Amino acid sequence: MADFKLMRELATQGKTKIVLLVMDGLGGLPMTPGGMTELEAAKTPHLDRLASEGTLGLSRPIAAGISPGSGPAHLALFGYDPIQYDIGRGVLEAFGIGVEVGEKDVAARGNFCTVDANGVITDRRAGRLASDKAAAVVEKLKAIKLKGVECEVRHVKEHRFVLVLRGEGLSADVQDTDPQAVGAAPLPARATSSAGGKTAALVNLWIAAAQKILAGEAQANMLTLRGFSGDPNLPKYRDVYKLKAACVAVYPMYKGVAKLVGMEVQKFDGDSPADEFAHLAQIWNEYDFFFIHVKPTDSRGEDGDFDAKAKVVESVDAALPTLLDLKLDVLIVTGDHSTPAKLKSHSWHPVPLLLWAPAMHLPDRCQSFGERECILGGLGQFPATDIMPLALAHAGRLARYGA
Amino acid sequence: MADFKLMRELATQGKTKIVLLVMDGLGGLPMTPGGMTELEAAKTPHLDRLASEGTLGLSRPIAAGISPGSGPAHLALFGYDPIQYDIGRGVLEAFGIGVEVGEKDVAARGNFCTVDANGVITDRRAGRLASDKAAAVVEKLKAIKLKGVECEVRHVKEHRFVLVLRGEGLSADVQDTDPQAVGAAPLPARATSSAGGKTAALVNLWIAAAQKILAGEAQANMLTLRGFSGDPNLPKYRDVYKLKAACVAVYPMYKGVAKLVGMEVQKFDGDSPADEFAHLAQIWNEYDFFFIHVKPTDSRGEDGDFDAKAKVVESVDAALPTLLDLKLDVLIVTGDHSTPAKLKSHSWHPVPLLLWAPAMHLPDRCQSFGERECILGGLGQFPATDIMPLALAHAGRLARYGA
Repeated sequence: MADFKLMRELATQGKTKIVLLVMDGLGGLPMTPGGMTELEAAKTPHLDRLASEGTLGLSRPIAAGISPGSGPAHLALFGYDPIQYDIGRGVLEAFGIGVEVGEKDVAARGNFCTVDANGVITDRRAGRLASDKAAAVVEKLKAIKLKGVECEVRHVKEHRFVLVLRGEGLSADVQDTDPQAVGAAPLPARATSSAGGKTAALVNLWIAAAQKILAGEAQANMLTLRGFSGDPNLPKYRDVYKLKAACVAVYPMYKGVAKLVGMEVQKFDGDSPADEFAHLAQIWNEYDFFFIHVKPTDSRGEDGDFDAKAKVVESVDAALPTLLDLKLDVLIVTGDHSTPAKLKSHSWHPVPLLLWAPAMHLPDRCQSFGERECILGGLGQFPATDIMPLALAHAGRLARYGA
Repeated sequence: MADFKLMRELATQGKTKIVLLVMDGLGGLPMTPGGMTELEAAKTPHLDRLASEGTLGLSRPIAAGISPGSGPAHLALFGYDPIQYDIGRGVLEAFGIGVEVGEKDVAARGNFCTVDANGVITDRRAGRLASDKAAAVVEKLKAIKLKGVECEVRHVKEHRFVLVLRGEGLSADVQDTDPQAVGAAPLPARATSSAGGKTAALVNLWIAAAQKILAGEAQANMLTLRGFSGDPNLPKYRDVYKLKAACVAVYPMYKGVAKLVGMEVQKFDGDSPADEFAHLAQIWNEYDFFFIHVKPTDSRGEDGDFDAKAKVVESVDAALPTLLDLKLDVLIVTGDHSTPAKLKSHSWHPVPLLLWAPAMHLPDRCQSFGERECILGGLGQFPATDIMPLALAHAGRLARYGA
């Protein structure tokens, strides 16, 4: 990516502090035409003051019309082109449940499925097997041992699980075993390069052992694996941006992605925004950059609960003084994507963004933090990958380009 | 660059006239939160009228967060991707003091430095040698003659000078001799390709001769050279845009860059905006495109003098009737980058832009020329490299793309 070339060339060490406060799925929509969005409806006196002092805009996570998953959306926030830098599905699924995927490991997503007497798939999700039943089946699979590699298998939800192989000489160059269709048999694991040969052979041994264990199951009598992936070896914050970065998050997925870009993942007590801000205050002197992740905005959006989502935003606003007492140089408040309660899902809409960096930002006429104000903001609409360069510039951490 | 392919294909000859009026470093910031910017504070009745009739926007010189130097910023204004098209530092430094760098020439930036008895650098800027003393030393270096090449050496400012070699078979493929650190000796000039061998050898002969001359100096007893560069062979306006273009500028740097893209650099009396407009009126029938450069907006911004910068803008506005009497088809008024007096330096902020092309442009609701209005303008925020295609389109000089 050309911009990392620029960042590597221009980013400088400094003493300024940057906070990136992400309310997951922040962007919203009115429940009825002409109504307010969740963010507009929330009472946010602190954010509104920051909005009137700062500059607003709308960030686009991936591209026009594209609704992102959490992985690519956070990569974009962190400045990584989410099309170019791809965290594999297996790794993301592992991160989502707090399973580590180290530099030498290979992770895959697993699905239980139902096959008939001929081994042909009749249900790709094993009847969406109940989570408690699936977890019990996963327990049995933990007995599988392969020579020379550790096999970690962990249940995710319903018919889904994760398999991580750990050992020497592994490679993620292995094709999915999921034929993506009912009426076909699961495929054997096939290497897509010579590097993947050993791993494919091990995976096939593991599948064969699993098949024996599953033979007696009524629904989950077979499985498929896909998204074989390892550490994507992303450039690190310290190298690209010259930032020592901390991640203050509660959910494993976000800790996982933050770790991949070189942030130091924090352990702390509690799980509220207030707890997160309190921890940030404690580590304030140790880092240059702080990523704070607030999950429930997204969760309540997915629930379709407009009022509850607005309340989460209000809880963040209420806790904000702890953060603002810290004499930060740059604060960016935004989401990784929109999750309108109206749609009960991630959406493609651009995401409200507030940039506050006293006396450094372009003035606009916006007076409060909300979608309609952000449309008129001084930052306009821009790719989320611009957020980090903007943060660095406003923190006085980017040298001039050219003479 | 993909766009030049489009421009080469679609640009047509015509009788319309385009004026690009650049107030260097035009973009600004309020000195105190909520205050006006320089451009907003300036009384600009003519620009405000044009703004109300025309379309406003904000242009981004390089990329989000990037503060550009004058070279890349002007390349972008002229439509050249400033990352792809790089004018070397040596050439830019030469241009800055009006030294020509022809197609076969190689230019380098020079720094006087101080070395100890072992030849190790103790001060990379020779104590920021006073300009008069440095100029006297440069005079002595003019005595150096090399066989087969002309050596032009010219003082720039303080410890800085320019060396230009002119002759056959020269190449800019030569590494910096500046070790970029105190405690190291200057490096010999080394070729980075076989083409650079002859030049590196000549440079080393020149350095050896210079070292003898400098031996008696207390501070400037050695020198380093960097940014070896030649003519970047940029595509020319006549070929890319089908435009016969004139440059009306006072400062050498801008004349140099304009010449590189094929503009004809004008000589004229005086140095005020009024003088520039008066000259433009005289050559009106001879060209299609006119680049007018006003420097003092940037200089007063660098000084941190908000009021003086606003006054420069007012002087341009006052002189504008001369320009507007000329029945121009397209007028673009903008800057190459922002130089807020508040920051006393070039900055990354997007630059106010006014497009006036009667009855051809998208209408917006803006009523005056200033940052806050430009945020709401019909052109939105866009890369500076879009300016030339927009200018050509509004001048009726771009054919339709495709059937």
